[in-house]
Amino acid sequence: MPLSEFDLIDRYFRDCGARRDDVLLGVGDDGAVLGVPNDRQLVAALDTLVDGVHFPRGCAPTSVGHRALAVNLSDLAAMGATPAWALLGLTLPAADEHWLDGFAQGFRALACRHEVALVGGDTTSGPLCITVQVLGFVSRDRAIRRRGARVGDAVFVTGSPGDSTLGLALEMQRRADPGSAAARELRGRFLFPTPRLEWGARLVGLATACIDVSDGLLGDAGKLAKASGVRIELDRESLPISAAAREVAGEYDARYAALTGGEDFELLFTAPAALAAEIETVLCDGVRAHCIGRVLAGEGAIVSSAGSVIDVSHSGFDHFGR
Amino acid sequence: MPLSEFDLIDRYFRDCGARRDDVLLGVGDDGAVLGVPNDRQLVAALDTLVDGVHFPRGCAPTSVGHRALAVNLSDLAAMGATPAWALLGLTLPAADEHWLDGFAQGFRALACRHEVALVGGDTTSGPLCITVQVLGFVSRDRAIRRRGARVGDAVFVTGSPGDSTLGLALEMQRRADPGSAAARELRGRFLFPTPRLEWGARLVGLATACIDVSDGLLGDAGKLAKASGVRIELDRESLPISAAAREVAGEYDARYAALTGGEDFELLFTAPAALAAEIETVLCDGVRAHCIGRVLAGEGAIVSSAGSVIDVSHSGFDHFGR
Repeated sequence: MPLSEFDLIDRYFRDCGARRDDVLLGVGDDGAVLGVPNDRQLVAALDTLVDGVHFPRGCAPTSVGHRALAVNLSDLAAMGATPAWALLGLTLPAADEHWLDGFAQGFRALACRHEVALVGGDTTSGPLCITVQVLGFVSRDRAIRRRGARVGDAVFVTGSPGDSTLGLALEMQRRADPGSAAARELRGRFLFPTPRLEWGARLVGLATACIDVSDGLLGDAGKLAKASGVRIELDRESLPISAAAREVAGEYDARYAALTGGEDFELLFTAPAALAAEIETVLCDGVRAHCIGRVLAGEGAIVSSAGSVIDVSHSGFDHFGR
Repeated sequence: MPLSEFDLIDRYFRDCGARRDDVLLGVGDDGAVLGVPNDRQLVAALDTLVDGVHFPRGCAPTSVGHRALAVNLSDLAAMGATPAWALLGLTLPAADEHWLDGFAQGFRALACRHEVALVGGDTTSGPLCITVQVLGFVSRDRAIRRRGARVGDAVFVTGSPGDSTLGLALEMQRRADPGSAAARELRGRFLFPTPRLEWGARLVGLATACIDVSDGLLGDAGKLAKASGVRIELDRESLPISAAAREVAGEYDARYAALTGGEDFELLFTAPAALAAEIETVLCDGVRAHCIGRVLAGEGAIVSSAGSVIDVSHSGFDHFGR
């Protein structure tokens, strides 16, 4: 007998995250009832992953479960928020128990790591598609926005952007082949990205603006620049390229991947240039941030190399623009 | 040139609902920042609609926009919550401007009617699928739950369940034919259901338990019974059948539709039997509630007719159980 929607929720999702005292009513009613601390504001984000669009068809379900939550936690990180609760909308063609086991395992492990409770959601039948909604807290009026970058600020990025897009390419081309240690590292960066929540929390009161890098460094720098009413210049030679990316793709392609690849889930932020030396000593989420550019008067995001502006034709992933 | 994801959000969703002072940062950043009143608890719900599953393929986009929000507001109504904010995850095969215009119009009209602000979301390409997440408030510890029905309570339902499922059948079989006034009324009940928010607010402190009827009256009565640890007996002759349902489907089928049809988005609730006469005089959301049964010791939900239990084989819509 097939698993019913109700059994499925019971078995996989009733206890698929951390337990929190502020969850007054969780999975299993028409809605969840949640207690928000008096001195906090709520931060809400929602992201959808579609089979064959945001992950390759046949992608390991533990990775899909991890990523569905991670991409949302990354949004909270970019706001400087502390995550608390998630809701899950899961549409899948059939109640495949192997897939559900893996998905729930990937989701739960990350949720528990960041003390996120799964408090509600919906499971439906249809083409594989996952929407996660997350809620977190910030202190009153302390959320970091995209708007706020000032002329003269320095521009930073956490970790090593480009790894994820190279990992995805490896994953799609040679899934059966484990490849070199460098290849495995890059694939892991795509399959199990780390939301930079420690970094986000650290940047509250320090960063003037922040965005998570989901659509490519250059494209997302452009969005931050637009929101702040400034121009951002990224210095091609300053991009932090991982040894693994350099080994697998070579220097040139690794820099191109960093500028234009998507799905990094690193944080791109601006802060006063006087703080650059201090910021570059900080270690959060196991990674450092590097100064990769500057904020100028004007508009748009550009890339310079050895003092000249260079053309990088593709500027970020856009779901409908191509 | 096709519409980009960013243009699409700007054009259709930046201002797709009410304006609220408690939205400190809305659509356009990594997350929304929201102010929750100190004396309130948060209620969160999320529902997904899949093309060809929750609405017929080719369904009018204004209806899809309306329903995507309405089914979520219905969850808040069942908790006795007042809606405030929504997030939208919209996956669609192409940026079809005609469809988007209609969808946004249906969503916006309902959002404005209930003072709901659209504060964030995600648009992606893929098979048509819509996930909406809503947030609302209840006074501290006043949310109505499914658990809480007591032996001796009376059972009530708002409006006229069954209309929506009959409307869906008409919509699928004879879309081009406008049909009789009764047929148009039933189709309207499917295409543009009214979330019973006035009713939900009125039931706080009055109802002992409540659920919204999305999967059929009998199936949802069973869920309420299970959550409350009681047995619910519904009286077949007491079901409120609309004149339109009677005209289109006949008495017998209309009662069957009321018991087993889905997507009604009426409220099924329990309250002390002594309050039945008072409750039946209340008019909220333009409809009354009718006493349709009683809460007994035991388990499960049953239907009786003229004093005998009758068999209603199909007991609610289950996405994976059939």
